[in-house]
Order: sequence, then C-alpha cells, then structure tokens
Amino acid sequence: MTKDKLIGVDLGGTTIKFAILTIEGEIQEKWAVPTNILDDGSHIVPDIVNSINKRLGLLKLDRERIVGIGMGTPGTVDRQNGTVEAAYNLNWKNIQHVREAVQKGTGLDFTIDNDANSAAIGEQWKGAGENNPNVAFVTLGTGVGGGIIANGHMVRGVFGAGGEFGHVVVEPNGYLCTCGNRGCLEQYCSAPGVVHLAHDFADEYEGNSQLKQMLDNGEDVTSKTVFDLAKNGDFLATEIVDKMAYYLGYATASLSNILNPAYVVIGGGVSAAGSFLLNKVQKHWTKYAFSPVRSSTKLKLAVLGNDAGVIGAASLAREFIKK
Amino acid sequence: MTKDKLIGVDLGGTTIKFAILTIEGEIQEKWAVPTNILDDGSHIVPDIVNSINKRLGLLKLDRERIVGIGMGTPGTVDRQNGTVEAAYNLNWKNIQHVREAVQKGTGLDFTIDNDANSAAIGEQWKGAGENNPNVAFVTLGTGVGGGIIANGHMVRGVFGAGGEFGHVVVEPNGYLCTCGNRGCLEQYCSAPGVVHLAHDFADEYEGNSQLKQMLDNGEDVTSKTVFDLAKNGDFLATEIVDKMAYYLGYATASLSNILNPAYVVIGGGVSAAGSFLLNKVQKHWTKYAFSPVRSSTKLKLAVLGNDAGVIGAASLAREFIKK
Repeated sequence: MTKDKLIGVDLGGTTIKFAILTIEGEIQEKWAVPTNILDDGSHIVPDIVNSINKRLGLLKLDRERIVGIGMGTPGTVDRQNGTVEAAYNLNWKNIQHVREAVQKGTGLDFTIDNDANSAAIGEQWKGAGENNPNVAFVTLGTGVGGGIIANGHMVRGVFGAGGEFGHVVVEPNGYLCTCGNRGCLEQYCSAPGVVHLAHDFADEYEGNSQLKQMLDNGEDVTSKTVFDLAKNGDFLATEIVDKMAYYLGYATASLSNILNPAYVVIGGGVSAAGSFLLNKVQKHWTKYAFSPVRSSTKLKLAVLGNDAGVIGAASLAREFIKK
Repeated sequence: MTKDKLIGVDLGGTTIKFAILTIEGEIQEKWAVPTNILDDGSHIVPDIVNSINKRLGLLKLDRERIVGIGMGTPGTVDRQNGTVEAAYNLNWKNIQHVREAVQKGTGLDFTIDNDANSAAIGEQWKGAGENNPNVAFVTLGTGVGGGIIANGHMVRGVFGAGGEFGHVVVEPNGYLCTCGNRGCLEQYCSAPGVVHLAHDFADEYEGNSQLKQMLDNGEDVTSKTVFDLAKNGDFLATEIVDKMAYYLGYATASLSNILNPAYVVIGGGVSAAGSFLLNKVQKHWTKYAFSPVRSSTKLKLAVLGNDAGVIGAASLAREFIKK
C-alpha cells in the first residue's frame, strides 16, 4: 500500500491540535483536544496516542498509508533521542521520552521539533514561504521566536538555538530580558514587550491620548489595544508601534543581511496587526537592509495562522518518506 | 583511474594562487603567478588555463586523476552560469564566461564562487572550523566579508548575499558606508575602518599618545599601527581597539544568536592582531550572546592564513566527486 498521509501534532499549553495531511501538505482532517497538564503533564503523551488511534479507527484509515507522525512542542527538544524537557507550560520539568511512547502506542514512525521550528517549516512549505528553500520565520507572541530554512534545511545550529531571533540584542543596555541579557528583541516585539513600551512611553507623555488615559486608569491594556488605538490615530499608541516597528525592522534587516533569504515571514499573535504593522516594519527594514538584500529579500506576513503548527509538524514527518 | 586530486585557484587582484590537493584536502603542490589586469583583465583566464596545463605537464599528472577545478574570485559570481562580473580590481567590468573558457582550455570540470565564500569553506573544512557542519567565517581586510556553512552547506541566500556580514548595521546613523547605508560593520572593523576610528578618536583626545602624535604629524597609520601601539599600552590606541572589538563582538554575537554555529572563525589581515584582538572581542561577544549560544558557540581565529583561499576553492570542486 502506498504511504500517502502525514500526521501533524501541535502541542500547546492549552490545546493539542492534530491534522492528517496528504504528502503534498493538504489538510484532510483536523481535530483538537484540551491539554491536560495535571500530574506533572503525565497524561499528555497517552492522550496524544489515544486521540490518534481513536481518529484512525473512526476514519477507518489503514495505518499502512501513514508515512509518520511529526510533532511540534514547547520546551527543549533532543531530536536525536526524541525527548523533551523544560516545557514549563506543560508541567514537564523532567525528561519526557515522547518518541518512544508515541511509537510504541501507535506503531507509527515519530519525529519531533520545537514549536517555533515547526511553525517555520509550515509557513515555508505551504504558507508565505511558497516552498522557497531559503526562508526565515519570526514569530511574535508571548515571546519572540523563529526558525531558519536555508538550502531547504532547518538551521538548528550546534545546540538547537538556531533561529532564536528573540534574543538578538537590538538595544544594547536596554530592557532586562528573562535570559539575563539586556535589550533582546523579545523585550520590545513580543506582546508583553509592546505593553512594556506602552507603560514607559506613557510615563513620559503629557498630551492627549486614549491609551494614556487607559494606562493611567489602570485598565487592562494588551498589545492589541495598542495596535487598535494606533490604527485609530492615537498619538501615543502610534509612537509605541513606531518604536516596536523600528526594532523589528532593524532586527529583520540584520538577519536578512546575514542570510539573504527569499522571504522573512512574520507570524504569531502580534502579527495580527497585519499590513498596518508590516508597512511600518518595512520602512525601517529598508533603511538597514544591504542594497542587494533590499532588492532580493522580501518581508511578508504569515498566512497559515493557527494551522502553521500542524502543517509544519506534519512536514517534519516527510523525513520518513522513502527516497 | 581513480579521481583523487582537486585543483584550487584563488584569484586575487595581484596574484593568482594555485594548489593541487588530495580529496582529503592535503596540499600537495602550490604555485602562484602574478595577475595581469591589463587589457580589461582579458589575460587572466588564459593565464589560469595555461598555468594549470603547464603544471600538470611538468608533474606528469594524468588529467584522469583530477576531480575538477574550484576557483574563488572577487566580483559578483553567477554560479549557475559560471560567470563573473563587477570585479573591479581585476578590471572585469563586463560579464566574463570563466567556466566555459577554463573547461574548454583544460578539459576539466570547473566550479566557481566568490572569494569570501571560498575562504569560509577552506577554514570550515581544513582550518579552525574542524570540518564542523555549522561554521560562520568573518574576514576582516580592506572590507569585511564572510560566509556561512549550515548543515554542511554554504548559505548563499537567494541572491548570493548570504554571509555578507560587513553590511550588518552595528551603529544606526553611524559612519556612511560605500553601500549607501550608515553604520555598517565594515566601516568599523575593516582595516580602513580602524583607521577611520583612529582619526575620529584622535580628534577628541588631548592626552599623551604616540598614536595621537603620529596622526597629528600626518604619518602613515594603518590598522596594524593601531594594534601594535595598543599592545604596547598606548591609551588612545587601546580605546580604538576596544571600540572596534565592541562592534565585532556585538555583530558576531548577533550572528551567533541567529545561527548558533559551532564556531565563528575570524580571519583576514586585521585578524593578524591575534589573541590580543580575540580576547577583547570575546568580552563583548559574551555580553551579547544568548545564554545557550554562549555555552555552545565558540569564537576562534582563522588558522589557514593565505592557504584558506586555495583550500576552499579546491573544496568547491568536491561537488564533482561521484556519489
């Protein structure tokens, strides 16, 4: 029987997303289950195994047609050994032997990578990256992460930290980062980073601004609030978005100058600000991009949204396709 | 007959260096001829062909044993078509059909890349890179260039500008660069960049300094002068080297954070300042490197010196080894 299906698993702190795809990357079936992080996250892997087995049964899909399972996960991944550790939002403190358990439980080949790399491959393969062999992906969410595909292969580096754009320093001696350094991109371009900038700018600002009022009243301000107000012309919010866009433009220009990818794809929750954000980032990127890079590398917004994770995860399983 | 030899050609503005290597990368024969840039550089390719043919004749080396010829060159390389243009120090303004001419003239397979990429592969394969599949190479000379090897392959990017570290912006709104941007690494860490810093710092400095005196007297000051005086404790020279080392440390930390290579290798004429320079760069690099990168990526000095070019060029010809 021809093996013509991939399974992708996108493991997150609140939901586990699953999909069955053709080997060309078309999603044929999607489902999700809540992530049960109780008991040190010990239910998670069994839940994944059960959910896949149950779904394959319901679909009467012959296991012989499955190339393999790919999974994206938070935490520190050891791809060689198929293990994960330090995934704190899953309550996984100790080493989890995920590959061993899933392969045993499903009888299928299994491979794993971190969630940022999975999303990067998803966007590169079936999203804004248009399957180009040279794509960089930056994701702006609670943190700032990313992934690099060069010559068609993921650049993981020697210790798996390749593509960790969030810790490129964009403001020497700037905001203190959780990593211990100062001025990391993540401190300015993640959702909490935008809110941090908002508080700092509001402290210094005396003019009219709805954002200023909200902050002074102690109202709940998110990065979305800031972008929405900036779109409506709020002066303070616009200043904050410009500053954030400067940092993102500068950092993406540096990585473009280093890698000269076809596309730098910007995704994650903060990128929901869309072309309003992209145009501002583009302005700064253009200033700092090296001339031949400026004319050959292109900034783009991610297009897969929530599906990037499962598509990228499934893409990982393509390593099991027999040559 | 087994194909067991590679030929490397390192084409420069004053000398063309040649070497015959084993496929393991050991140099067995080296020679050089002057570069004749007269008549729009039209003698260069015939000289290369003749020099190779003559040497193979002298050595009575059977052409059947040669895997192929690899060459590193200045200018803009079109690897697909085997052509070079805009190599101004060779007087090559128009497109040169180098591959066609060399293959026809020698009967051997021929491949070409730019000189920075060639030197990078040389250092990665047989030099400080210890044949690790993830190495970044930065070369500090008249300009600042470089090359990236990731997953064992050269990262050229979509337009060949991959690894052009010289145009990463390290000082927004800093020195004007020949590329049109401001604050490029090249403006601070190339040999002329160090001299530029020296003049700027001397203008502001009123204390005792031999360097200050030399500059004020209009004596000829090179980057080597600055490093030599700094090694002798000259205050002004030390300040300049510290500033240059800051920029280099910051930029190499950014590229380390992006790529997480096993080694960042620093070569080129300016790197002759050796461990005196490396230690200062290391200090700044450590400050800006992301913690997992700090413990897994290592800064090193290049070790091949002048041979990096021919070794890297020969390495390119390994693409002709039959799998």
